[in-house]
Amino acid sequence: MSYIAEIKVMPHKELLDPQGKAVLGGLSNLGLAGVADVRVGKNITLQIDADSAAAAEAIAREAAQQLLANPVMEYFEVRCEKA
Amino acid sequence: MSYIAEIKVMPHKELLDPQGKAVLGGLSNLGLAGVADVRVGKNITLQIDADSAAAAEAIAREAAQQLLANPVMEYFEVRCEKA
Repeated sequence: MSYIAEIKVMPHKELLDPQGKAVLGGLSNLGLAGVADVRVGKNITLQIDADSAAAAEAIAREAAQQLLANPVMEYFEVRCEKA
Repeated sequence: MSYIAEIKVMPHKELLDPQGKAVLGGLSNLGLAGVADVRVGKNITLQIDADSAAAAEAIAREAAQQLLANPVMEYFEVRCEKA
């Protein structure tokens, strides 16, 4: 069966996010008021063939740990659903 | 009131995603079987001060259209919730 796993990789909340600060500056230059903070991260969508949703989520978690997220600077969240 | 808007920016489904293909190659090099396709995009979290959730979502949508997403190559989705 085919599953879609969404992996959200974001910079740790304690760390400064220069890319987010740049976006915040850009938004205020565009005159868009009201935005207090910006964090920029990655979103990776995996299409996984697995027997169950749990197995698909395990594969996605393994992928995030081994390749997609740098645990020193980033945390990740995995959501998995049927394709 | 403070709201958190999550903007997901992904490459259009019709387009080739070289970064996703590279990740797919990396995963198969790591011996992680079962992954059929990978798409890589951005995830931007905005902290917005606004009067209502609808106003916050409007600001986030404006930010995505004007700065965060390139409509030629990317589409975006906005989700907004109370902080």
